[in-house]
Amino acid sequence: MNYFRIEIIGLIAAVFTTAAFIPQVLKISKKRSAKGVSVSMYVIMFIGICFWLFYGILINSTAVIVANLISGILQLVIIFFSLIHRKNN
Amino acid sequence: MNYFRIEIIGLIAAVFTTAAFIPQVLKISKKRSAKGVSVSMYVIMFIGICFWLFYGILINSTAVIVANLISGILQLVIIFFSLIHRKNN
Repeated sequence: MNYFRIEIIGLIAAVFTTAAFIPQVLKISKKRSAKGVSVSMYVIMFIGICFWLFYGILINSTAVIVANLISGILQLVIIFFSLIHRKNN
Repeated sequence: MNYFRIEIIGLIAAVFTTAAFIPQVLKISKKRSAKGVSVSMYVIMFIGICFWLFYGILINSTAVIVANLISGILQLVIIFFSLIHRKNN
């Protein structure tokens, strides 16, 4: 399989694992509560994503870089929402 | 940076992003409720993880393969717990 096709598979993977965080963002903003959400989970994951981003740059993987750049931003949004709503409760 | 050191960085990333799901598993099993957890999130993520695993095999990345193999199993545990507890509520 050539480089282009391999990266397409990686980018499909990226779409799914990135999109996965959208229902959680919607749920938190809709219910205006993040009671069931583990903030520690998202903080640990954010640290991991920073390492993945570095790894992606080192192995020159477009899919790993793109996925972790977008996921990292979404994680920050979830952490921000969770802390804001926690304060309001 | 040599292959071995690069893979170490990838594996550190894997430890964080995999460990991130453990607090959520503990929270669900402790509270015996998965009310705040978005099951759809974990299902979408599980599909993405299957693609990442395939991508990891194609690019020969030990870190991507190991990370997604373990994450995939943890995701299945969370989905299983969420559905069981949802049924009980």
